[in-house]
Amino acid sequence: MAAKVAGPEIERLVQLLARLPGLGPRSARRAVLHLIRKREELLAPLADAMAVARDRILTCSTCGNIDTSDPCAICADPRRDASILLVVETVADLWALERAGHLSARYHVLGGVLSPLDGVGPQELNLASLVERVSGGGVREVILAVNATVDGQTTAHYVADLLAPLEVTVTRLAHGVPVGGELDYLDDGTLAAALQRRSAF
Amino acid sequence: MAAKVAGPEIERLVQLLARLPGLGPRSARRAVLHLIRKREELLAPLADAMAVARDRILTCSTCGNIDTSDPCAICADPRRDASILLVVETVADLWALERAGHLSARYHVLGGVLSPLDGVGPQELNLASLVERVSGGGVREVILAVNATVDGQTTAHYVADLLAPLEVTVTRLAHGVPVGGELDYLDDGTLAAALQRRSAF
Repeated sequence: MAAKVAGPEIERLVQLLARLPGLGPRSARRAVLHLIRKREELLAPLADAMAVARDRILTCSTCGNIDTSDPCAICADPRRDASILLVVETVADLWALERAGHLSARYHVLGGVLSPLDGVGPQELNLASLVERVSGGGVREVILAVNATVDGQTTAHYVADLLAPLEVTVTRLAHGVPVGGELDYLDDGTLAAALQRRSAF
Repeated sequence: MAAKVAGPEIERLVQLLARLPGLGPRSARRAVLHLIRKREELLAPLADAMAVARDRILTCSTCGNIDTSDPCAICADPRRDASILLVVETVADLWALERAGHLSARYHVLGGVLSPLDGVGPQELNLASLVERVSGGGVREVILAVNATVDGQTTAHYVADLLAPLEVTVTRLAHGVPVGGELDYLDDGTLAAALQRRSAF
């Protein structure tokens, strides 16, 4: 699979695309052929969009989101409720919550979770800036919207402890049955949590 | 999934990447976040490689291969045996045969297979240029290296008929047990072909 069979320019494109998550060498080759077939409709716009991303995308110095402006569009939006902060692990999680579209609040992207095995300690996460934002006032509630994994929950506890001295309500996402989920396929922990936190019908 | 949750520049990049084979909206989003995290090592070189591909990749007017030169590196290589032409459906098949690296011959890329249902007739394929190349002399053997599918074999028969009046030997790839393949998993047609064309041990 490693043999160079196309010209160096094409091989380079294949090798770079193969480094994207979800693409291997074979699918990268297929993608390159597709791109070259659709040069005007896909390859040219994609080359431009990547150049724009390379040149203009910034990390928001307030919340850690990515955008072409700093502060990002979410932090700069005056219609959003600045008194609620959703603490998320990654920008992908921020996007997921935005897609859900339930809450028009602001975010704080930690940039990962505490994971001693991977060498990720509190210094590696955007925790100092979170404490600073909350200490600065105006934040009423911090929602810990981290993954329901061991590392995520460890991080949630750490952040809750960090915010305890400050005058802010710290909440977390509900555990329960996913909408559309079948009980038979759920793990015991989720079912126990759903039973424990049952609500009036 | 269609909600715009990131800035327009990022959304555009996600939407374009999602049009690559093997990537959907979700994996395109993951790819974009990965690209932005690895801006210098991956995003910048990829933007450049795509711009190079957009500006410089040509289709070889002799064989239909893609390269940055016309004729392509394979057609221009004097060490290759110009008397043997491997007729393939697509550039991907050309690459696969080059990876196998068994034969240092030249190629002719048809650009697809005859498929009346998809509206692909002989005019849509690079058949006229194949007849022209073979008529021009110097070609001793044409190997029909098309897929062993119904459309591929129909195309092979069509090409063989087309070349019949010319002074050229037309051959095709052997059918048989794939190297490393287990008999129990093979279809009856392959096993029958492998038995029929058995060779001395």
